[in-house]
Amino acid sequence: MKKVVTIGGGTGNFTVLSGLKHYNLDLSAVVSMADDGGSTGVLRDELGVLPPGDVRQCLVALSESSRLMRDLMNYRFDTGCLKGHSFGNILLSGLEKVTGSFEKAVEETGKIINIKGKVIPVTTNKVNLKMLLNNGRLLKGQSEIHLSEEVGQGFKTLYLEPFPTVNSKAVDEIMNADMVVLGPGGLYHSLIPNLLVKGIGKALKETKAKKVFVTNLVNKHNQTPNFKVEDYLKEIVMFVGEDVFDYIVVNEGVPSKELIKFYAQEGSLISNGSDDERIIKADLISQELKEVQSGDLLKRNLIRHDPKKLADVLMRILDDI
Amino acid sequence: MKKVVTIGGGTGNFTVLSGLKHYNLDLSAVVSMADDGGSTGVLRDELGVLPPGDVRQCLVALSESSRLMRDLMNYRFDTGCLKGHSFGNILLSGLEKVTGSFEKAVEETGKIINIKGKVIPVTTNKVNLKMLLNNGRLLKGQSEIHLSEEVGQGFKTLYLEPFPTVNSKAVDEIMNADMVVLGPGGLYHSLIPNLLVKGIGKALKETKAKKVFVTNLVNKHNQTPNFKVEDYLKEIVMFVGEDVFDYIVVNEGVPSKELIKFYAQEGSLISNGSDDERIIKADLISQELKEVQSGDLLKRNLIRHDPKKLADVLMRILDDI
Repeated sequence: MKKVVTIGGGTGNFTVLSGLKHYNLDLSAVVSMADDGGSTGVLRDELGVLPPGDVRQCLVALSESSRLMRDLMNYRFDTGCLKGHSFGNILLSGLEKVTGSFEKAVEETGKIINIKGKVIPVTTNKVNLKMLLNNGRLLKGQSEIHLSEEVGQGFKTLYLEPFPTVNSKAVDEIMNADMVVLGPGGLYHSLIPNLLVKGIGKALKETKAKKVFVTNLVNKHNQTPNFKVEDYLKEIVMFVGEDVFDYIVVNEGVPSKELIKFYAQEGSLISNGSDDERIIKADLISQELKEVQSGDLLKRNLIRHDPKKLADVLMRILDDI
Repeated sequence: MKKVVTIGGGTGNFTVLSGLKHYNLDLSAVVSMADDGGSTGVLRDELGVLPPGDVRQCLVALSESSRLMRDLMNYRFDTGCLKGHSFGNILLSGLEKVTGSFEKAVEETGKIINIKGKVIPVTTNKVNLKMLLNNGRLLKGQSEIHLSEEVGQGFKTLYLEPFPTVNSKAVDEIMNADMVVLGPGGLYHSLIPNLLVKGIGKALKETKAKKVFVTNLVNKHNQTPNFKVEDYLKEIVMFVGEDVFDYIVVNEGVPSKELIKFYAQEGSLISNGSDDERIIKADLISQELKEVQSGDLLKRNLIRHDPKKLADVLMRILDDI
């Protein structure tokens, strides 16, 4: 069975894993531990636990349990003290408290909802993502960076504090993979936080796995304004040390008229005009219209990858096109 | 396989079920739905759910899952917004929200923690326990009655509001049982709330099952002051309509010196001086010293039944002594 490792945050990993789950693969998700928004942020602050939100999404993606159990994991209480918390976050935090270990909590949750594959926190240190902007302002936390209107104006540095130790299991997974998939996902708040953990970049350089970068569908206003595919790569290379990718998956699908209406809100469609030979173009757009969950922030995120279409392309790459 | 049905609240049911679980029996717990204290009360108020606390304790008693899962069910968060809530209560309430049914939530939780037997809410109506005291004061809620210093002075009436419909499954279980066990448990706030649901008393009168009343070990100051076994029976008969019991299990064990020290706090030892021929005497006292959970109120409850000793007596009764 071929081994595929995905790297990212909650939503991007969810998309890739949901699609790949239907193939006969050994799947692992390496997950950023920088999340600090919404329910996750509150649980971190109040219980002193590691961030459960992104991990929860990966677990649900890999779950072969009933629809009910997956709905329960994502269920958000909407009144009282529990308001805003998803049940799955509470489960992970409760298990972390009872077992004394976030990794053990992830493992046990995986058993409860019967996951196919593994979910691996990139580090088990308590870290905060920080970004020092060119204008001198320091953005503290993944959520603040995600919501900032100033990131697109440039930044001096992006780092995790305190400097974390890599989870050796994440390195092992990457080293033993047949394919490693980075993205899609928020460049600065979901993808790069994994690369900021020392050891991940080295593993990406050394592994014999095919390395695939899946570009996002749209740029984010004020975050990655008018970025082209090569701009995303340039940013990633800065944190990995070299351009490690064998394939770059880019959407060439045209969104429906209904989706186009929302483009102005979401940001520009990412240009696929590059002549990079590694680029694989395909229609990757989900035509479904629905409210989706992004990390711990509930938002309308109408332009999304179709998990099945994306998995088809990734499987073609894995099987040598 | 013989069928045994227990009737009570959380703690008493827990004790009986924990002991009987080790025998080859078809077990069912009929559980009061009047709980409104602590975490359970907050969840009822804020989420509009049915009371999970007593049901949770029964589920844990019947669980054949790992120690970790049982610990998780009883784990109480101790900081932040979640403070005071046990994880199991949140699980039951989350499942009630997702499924739209408390019974379905209980059933699904039973699957998650792999229970042997069934846990059956006596009603699935949202009820409040009320007690009108002789002095004219109205005590509103199980928790208020439980904590009241005035109950022992007498009351005019005890009732559930609104008047509930019985869960027909509870009636079926009682009708099909080989043995029905009422108690131990708080007379007014755990046992009688089951009998206040119309249909339960009738089932107790009509079933061919052996009916066993397990008396408490001690009287509660200001609740059942200096009650003898026959006083408990008299109170229960008032709500059932007749004295249905075939056996009355009474402790004759002598507590350890360490336990005796706490007697003054807990109330007097229940007298077993009655010459009622139905009385079965046995040493039922747990000699273990530990903090235990009573309903949703954490308290030192040092004089407790030993689940194994109690189960031994109940099995003797089931096997015709």
